[in-house]
Amino acid sequence: MANNKKMVEDITSMEVDFAKWYTDIVKKAELCDYSSVKGCMIVRPYGYAIWENIQHLLDAEFKRTGHQNVAMPLFIPESLLQKEKDHVEGFAPEVAWVTYGGSEELEERLCVRPTSETLFCDHYKNIIKSYRDLPKLYNQWCSVVRWEKTTRPFLRTREFLWQEGHTMHETAQEAIDETEMILNIYADFCEKQLAMPVVRGKKTDSEKFSGAEATYTIEAMMHDGKSLQAGTSHYFGDHFAKAFEIEFQNRENKPQTPHQTSWGVSTRLIGGIIMTHGDDNGLVLPPAIAPIQVVVIPVAQHKEGVIEKAQEVKERLAKQFRTDIDISDNSPGWKFAQYEMKGVPLRLEIGPKDIEQNQCVLVRRDNREKTFVSLDELETKVTELLQVVHDGMYEKALQNRENRTWSALNLEELIQIANEKSGFIKAMWCGDAECEAKLKEVAGVSSRCMPFAQEHLSDTCVCCGKPAKSMVIWGKAY
Amino acid sequence: MANNKKMVEDITSMEVDFAKWYTDIVKKAELCDYSSVKGCMIVRPYGYAIWENIQHLLDAEFKRTGHQNVAMPLFIPESLLQKEKDHVEGFAPEVAWVTYGGSEELEERLCVRPTSETLFCDHYKNIIKSYRDLPKLYNQWCSVVRWEKTTRPFLRTREFLWQEGHTMHETAQEAIDETEMILNIYADFCEKQLAMPVVRGKKTDSEKFSGAEATYTIEAMMHDGKSLQAGTSHYFGDHFAKAFEIEFQNRENKPQTPHQTSWGVSTRLIGGIIMTHGDDNGLVLPPAIAPIQVVVIPVAQHKEGVIEKAQEVKERLAKQFRTDIDISDNSPGWKFAQYEMKGVPLRLEIGPKDIEQNQCVLVRRDNREKTFVSLDELETKVTELLQVVHDGMYEKALQNRENRTWSALNLEELIQIANEKSGFIKAMWCGDAECEAKLKEVAGVSSRCMPFAQEHLSDTCVCCGKPAKSMVIWGKAY
Repeated sequence: MANNKKMVEDITSMEVDFAKWYTDIVKKAELCDYSSVKGCMIVRPYGYAIWENIQHLLDAEFKRTGHQNVAMPLFIPESLLQKEKDHVEGFAPEVAWVTYGGSEELEERLCVRPTSETLFCDHYKNIIKSYRDLPKLYNQWCSVVRWEKTTRPFLRTREFLWQEGHTMHETAQEAIDETEMILNIYADFCEKQLAMPVVRGKKTDSEKFSGAEATYTIEAMMHDGKSLQAGTSHYFGDHFAKAFEIEFQNRENKPQTPHQTSWGVSTRLIGGIIMTHGDDNGLVLPPAIAPIQVVVIPVAQHKEGVIEKAQEVKERLAKQFRTDIDISDNSPGWKFAQYEMKGVPLRLEIGPKDIEQNQCVLVRRDNREKTFVSLDELETKVTELLQVVHDGMYEKALQNRENRTWSALNLEELIQIANEKSGFIKAMWCGDAECEAKLKEVAGVSSRCMPFAQEHLSDTCVCCGKPAKSMVIWGKAY
Repeated sequence: MANNKKMVEDITSMEVDFAKWYTDIVKKAELCDYSSVKGCMIVRPYGYAIWENIQHLLDAEFKRTGHQNVAMPLFIPESLLQKEKDHVEGFAPEVAWVTYGGSEELEERLCVRPTSETLFCDHYKNIIKSYRDLPKLYNQWCSVVRWEKTTRPFLRTREFLWQEGHTMHETAQEAIDETEMILNIYADFCEKQLAMPVVRGKKTDSEKFSGAEATYTIEAMMHDGKSLQAGTSHYFGDHFAKAFEIEFQNRENKPQTPHQTSWGVSTRLIGGIIMTHGDDNGLVLPPAIAPIQVVVIPVAQHKEGVIEKAQEVKERLAKQFRTDIDISDNSPGWKFAQYEMKGVPLRLEIGPKDIEQNQCVLVRRDNREKTFVSLDELETKVTELLQVVHDGMYEKALQNRENRTWSALNLEELIQIANEKSGFIKAMWCGDAECEAKLKEVAGVSSRCMPFAQEHLSDTCVCCGKPAKSMVIWGKAY
């Protein structure tokens, strides 16, 4: 397109306006577009390809650990949603209601699923009869709807794509183990595939999922110091199972109620990738999920043999890597900017001189470092450099988090940090929801989580001075 | 489970009650379950695994031919649905309407997408500016909702899973070529992967998609002689594009309206697989999409070394085939029946005598034929036999279709065949919708398609006797 050059130059700098920088990238890297329904987005091919790569990797993990995919209905009858009291209180205010089928008013209105605990329980009631039927380890990939007031692409939309796992177990311990195992799968995925360091922890009662006994979370720090809840895993105990009257014959031939979990990650992860790794030239994509891992750009492509050689190199790489080539008549400079905007981890430049010397140039997206590589060892070097890019991205993100993690020993300190800095604030907490509410009021921070890796900063609550029960990470969140 | 044996024996014979046989299989092979929302089904793990295999194979074909996946919103504002007159007339009576978001009544009601032409057009209007932006070849995998009165699992449900391709092209010819190419992808998929022979043809005007210029279809014959529309591909001309004011600068720098297609297959295909191949012992699954291609059943497994050897064989096969093993303490006979119910294409039996002779027994699901196979050539034989099973299934289905395809030269003949036989009735047609309506009234058959492979049966319409324009296949349909 004639105006592509302009597009590339158009991004707001992240230091000037982080929010605008974010929406610029989302639009200009063609990840998504706005639709005619307020708050609902169109995930465009490049954005969807990222999601497909995420799905592919996570789905393999879920299957490796014994989970099976299913498809539950899109709709939940109002009476079903109401079966678990805490759950309905949490979700009813933000669901979309179907009231008509064709021209007929429905006898009972149906909500579009905001999450599917109630549907899974309704099904589990039919299929769980004996301890031999347990565990049930189900997952589904679908979209859900929550009628949010304020929306932002990928981060908070009225409809979003996600996966939701719902499992049932014989014992509480098995369910707790599942909840933790999944949290670790999420955390490892974020760190090893998305190059996004996360803090693993537990939510406080006021931040946990509606109806859950405990919510575990992974919290990632974005470039601007705000926190992103990147995935959650919930332990339900037998609340829902009791409300839905799910019972099985146990090993002693007695009726018993099973224990339940649910867990999910969503297209929110794409927002997290953007805000963890992106820079003023655009997206920076982790190699594991980049739709294009290497883009081949011929230099002086009008010269004899250049395009042919570039294409030969592209074909070679395409056997092992997601590879693209751009032989359009745009200038190399335009192409460089374009694929930087798209966040392609490695750019391969090849021109007449390189061909003479049987080499090419590989340029890292994350820091623009150039490496001359012999074509004889191309595949090896690309493999290595993709790993190096991943590691570099992870280190940079970790550095950002470490630079922006603070400790506060008293309320005054905490308020000062919250006002003057951005990032995670570690502080001790007595466990009282009132203190949590007060910190939100006076410092504008919420509890992100109680990290599994606890530290003992002091004996007393940062807010009330009473004895502390745990260290909490406080912060502003997306 | 203690009552599994009973389950296996419980199927209604297909000759006694084909409809009941169908629902028995659907339930007992654990493909789906009913949900608390009338007409919406739960696709259970075994059914969903079939769908995943279908997705995997078709998605690769779509990508090979240059298509990209996207995700459009679930909702369509009423005003958007109304933009194309024929389309809204066709779909408005059967959509589900969202009227409330949380506790607030919406200013404009939203329908849950019954199909997404309007959403794609709304998006294409924003992103198609120049001939360089064309073609746009998009697809999405999602669910859609149509508020049907009468529903049957997989065949007609209020919500169903499908893929919908939506493409835009510079010229009418390109769009027509796309429509035909996709129909051929569908047909080849049905025949080569699902072992389901199909007739490729064009729908009559009264049977075409609401808003389409032409609808191409593949029609498969079920075991009972009824027709199943297994996939459709629509050519829209520039109807929608004009209604949505989509315009691009053409190669002569003049404004031009693009030409459009859409096409889809759905979980209906699973219904087709059941009714094409199933028998009184249960499902018979085509090897290409069977979640389990080979099941290993140890015989006399209490004897020393049997389970170990069976497991070794399973591990070997699992490297190349979707393989399962059943070492539960159910009897071999129970297991045989169980995996026949599940439609597993090959059963591998191995007992002490086999082990002594370094062999095993492979039993075909489609005809129960047994082959003794040396363990030295196991992988080769399994590969061969899976192909043989596929071919056998295809031939059997083709034979059924040929046995149930009739020709009628006049109305009396057609009515007699329709009353006495089941299957496809070939007959000439003048092209008049009145004759179509009359045949429905007097013979209870509808036009399935005008096959691409036309035959000249006579010069005159089977109904009115006026000059015939084309041969039509008439029949009863799911």
